[in-house]
Amino acid sequence: MTDIEAAALTTGGDVGYLRVATEEAWATQEIVDEWKRMIEAGEGGRGFHSLVGHYMTSDAERPRFVRAGLVDSDELRLGHMDAAGIDHAILALTAPGTQALDGSRGRAIATNANDILAEAVERHPTRFSGLAAVSLEDVPSAVAELERAVAKLGLRGLIVNSHIRGRYLSDPEFWPILEAVEALDVPLYLHPNTPNDSMIGTLHDSGLDGSVFGFQVETSMHALKMITSGVFDRFPELRLVLGHMGEALPFWLYRFDYMHAGMVAAGRYPAIRPLERKISDYIRENVWMTTSGMPAPEPILFSRKVLGNNRVMYAMDYPYEYVPDEVRMQDALPLTPAEKKSFFQDIAIDVFRLEESKLLSR
Amino acid sequence: MTDIEAAALTTGGDVGYLRVATEEAWATQEIVDEWKRMIEAGEGGRGFHSLVGHYMTSDAERPRFVRAGLVDSDELRLGHMDAAGIDHAILALTAPGTQALDGSRGRAIATNANDILAEAVERHPTRFSGLAAVSLEDVPSAVAELERAVAKLGLRGLIVNSHIRGRYLSDPEFWPILEAVEALDVPLYLHPNTPNDSMIGTLHDSGLDGSVFGFQVETSMHALKMITSGVFDRFPELRLVLGHMGEALPFWLYRFDYMHAGMVAAGRYPAIRPLERKISDYIRENVWMTTSGMPAPEPILFSRKVLGNNRVMYAMDYPYEYVPDEVRMQDALPLTPAEKKSFFQDIAIDVFRLEESKLLSR
Repeated sequence: MTDIEAAALTTGGDVGYLRVATEEAWATQEIVDEWKRMIEAGEGGRGFHSLVGHYMTSDAERPRFVRAGLVDSDELRLGHMDAAGIDHAILALTAPGTQALDGSRGRAIATNANDILAEAVERHPTRFSGLAAVSLEDVPSAVAELERAVAKLGLRGLIVNSHIRGRYLSDPEFWPILEAVEALDVPLYLHPNTPNDSMIGTLHDSGLDGSVFGFQVETSMHALKMITSGVFDRFPELRLVLGHMGEALPFWLYRFDYMHAGMVAAGRYPAIRPLERKISDYIRENVWMTTSGMPAPEPILFSRKVLGNNRVMYAMDYPYEYVPDEVRMQDALPLTPAEKKSFFQDIAIDVFRLEESKLLSR
Repeated sequence: MTDIEAAALTTGGDVGYLRVATEEAWATQEIVDEWKRMIEAGEGGRGFHSLVGHYMTSDAERPRFVRAGLVDSDELRLGHMDAAGIDHAILALTAPGTQALDGSRGRAIATNANDILAEAVERHPTRFSGLAAVSLEDVPSAVAELERAVAKLGLRGLIVNSHIRGRYLSDPEFWPILEAVEALDVPLYLHPNTPNDSMIGTLHDSGLDGSVFGFQVETSMHALKMITSGVFDRFPELRLVLGHMGEALPFWLYRFDYMHAGMVAAGRYPAIRPLERKISDYIRENVWMTTSGMPAPEPILFSRKVLGNNRVMYAMDYPYEYVPDEVRMQDALPLTPAEKKSFFQDIAIDVFRLEESKLLSR
């Protein structure tokens, strides 16, 4: 603990950069109460019960810590940020957000959440930014709420907690939302959820449906579905952010390109069509990635190498993962001071269009 | 083509190592005919029809090349090996093998395949080794056939094409087979298949169920199920081989350990139990990996770094992937001559217990 306490004194200014944590989980008491009601009522499906049931009802130490941290945007969270040396956190409604809810309940809860998050940012403008949540079930109202949350409330992007009760953003039904994201010049953060109920069985039977494995299956699949469906040909300026070191997409670039080209050439699937660029091009040019839950240096350095130096940014994943030593691991990355400033601070400022002067006024 | 033709002259002896390709696909005409009968009869499920239906019936260039290559173990294959500079190939019954078949048909076809493969090895002892196929549906007969194929026929390991009609080797029902693999001192090559039918829907709808993505979901899940179920605590000397650069398991070591420990501590799942070692320890100590379909240098060098230098070996994945320039990419890896000899030759000799004198007599 001595090292951690010492590190707490090391604020961003001292080390040459601000530490901006870009995938930080948050919830309103209202949505927590609604989730608990659904758990008790048996609503919401297998993935919902596995994930939310665990974090909202387990008596074990880690879920209790998560429950307390999620709904706080004042002393508790700021104290932990101070202790870990985090200057600024980008908060977003945690999985599954309102995406397990039907449209009418989801819409009201998401709108309230955006208001409450904007108030937290207003209370602590140097410490917090926020992403907008919308109910994706009704597309026109989702677009309207996103526009309100960005233009009126000052939120910095859209959080999507993967599947929308089994549907995906590759479905053109959702494309007006993507069009609005692009037009508003904000990023879409595609956060994990448990795999949709039609594919969760084998994973859940083995306890592998959650963050240990199923999250990355679900989220990398969602991103690939978006790419292969032509989302980024239609919206070439759309900025997608993935956590967990890109859900391992950087590992597969060669194979994605080779096999996708083979499928296109063979006409194997109706859903696989020629694209304007290679799969790896979209991953390199439309996707940014954060290190939430992936603080080990090797995957970070690997991803920087294959993607370029301006694609990978820091995240903690608080309160699911609160390990101040992981901040120190990333402080110690073998990067130049300028590269480290970019990794911890400048890429986030650029991707989320943060107001640098506000951050630096801390 | 000039470079490739020139490279064809460069046999192993000339460059300081033999190139041993360790995941090379093969089939008997008998199983091909049975698969075609099943396709026509509508038997075998969604993944089977997607994968086998494509490769066995499509008129496109790549599946036609694959069909011709799979059933050959003489002039055609040797010609391609010569042209690419491959000295020795380890052949195995391609996915889904007999694992889509019921026990009685599968048993006869697997036994015949082992006999036919042993004959191919006998015809070309310096060029081919083979892995044994068994019908996994009936465990006692699978053990008996594996013992026959290794002890009597000289085959060098067991091929398992992932799920057994939706079941996995993490199920203790199959553990006598793993016990036999360990006792015979041969490796188990866990090769991809399409995801099992209970989870394939979302992937297949988007054309992502095959080698572009679904293969790695299925196979990395299978390996994780084996590890988390305690297979390697029970059989600590069991050697598992994974293709496709370890199906990305090396990327996730930190997160596997962190999240698995959290699940164990919280008692979240009946299936998640305390293990003797960390997940990353099993991956580093019980698993070897090949570069089939993953010739790009960065993932190979990354995996060598996190796993150690004696875990990653060369594979081509012929005839699914026949790109002589990929051999050249791996010849050009920034490794010392001794490391390159290990990568192309010595690890394979060690893991598959190949007879070095036979290979070198070429």
